[in-house]
Amino acid sequence: MAGRAIVLFAHGARDPDWARPFRQLALELAERVPGERVTLAYLELMQPSLAECVSALYAEGFRRFRVVPVFFGAGGHLKKDLPALISTLNYKDIEVTVEPPVGEQPEVITAIARAIAR
Amino acid sequence: MAGRAIVLFAHGARDPDWARPFRQLALELAERVPGERVTLAYLELMQPSLAECVSALYAEGFRRFRVVPVFFGAGGHLKKDLPALISTLNYKDIEVTVEPPVGEQPEVITAIARAIAR
Repeated sequence: MAGRAIVLFAHGARDPDWARPFRQLALELAERVPGERVTLAYLELMQPSLAECVSALYAEGFRRFRVVPVFFGAGGHLKKDLPALISTLNYKDIEVTVEPPVGEQPEVITAIARAIAR
Repeated sequence: MAGRAIVLFAHGARDPDWARPFRQLALELAERVPGERVTLAYLELMQPSLAECVSALYAEGFRRFRVVPVFFGAGGHLKKDLPALISTLNYKDIEVTVEPPVGEQPEVITAIARAIAR
């Protein structure tokens, strides 16, 4: 059985440039967690969707998924849309945990404040 | 004449919880830049709008505005909607600068990666 997968869940947009920071984040995170698979999934307008992402990882043998919303705050997308998407994941023996949005982590807020104040 | 104002420009959402990290960011940033006014403005669904925010600050005497998008990446909202909003700001003698989205700052990406890897 494969290890754990971290799914970075972002909003998505029509403009391909939108994905640049998420891809950069995935690269940096992958270097920090060498034992885990790091992937991106999007709520809308970009591929893969969460369902496509989990389907591909399941086929590879992954059963444990850590979904990390790369959002600033928790609004309807994280309180309603994401739980609805998670509830459609009908696979045997999977374990899915969903974390708070990264923008609510105090050290992320501090890093943003520091970058702006510079 | 008043000093410079930093306008943190965020997306907005129906859910009031959405604004929590932006308000926290404004508080932390204000402590780091004691000589500047720090305010929040939203693209949609939350108040104040950018126009309302600038109008109030202009009435107070502010003429220099630094608009900092609290977005992860640059999609249509920052490439099209924000410039359109800026172009409607018809005030005498104002200077408005618009910065790249905070999510593209390398130290912000690193802080997010570090928070997830913990």
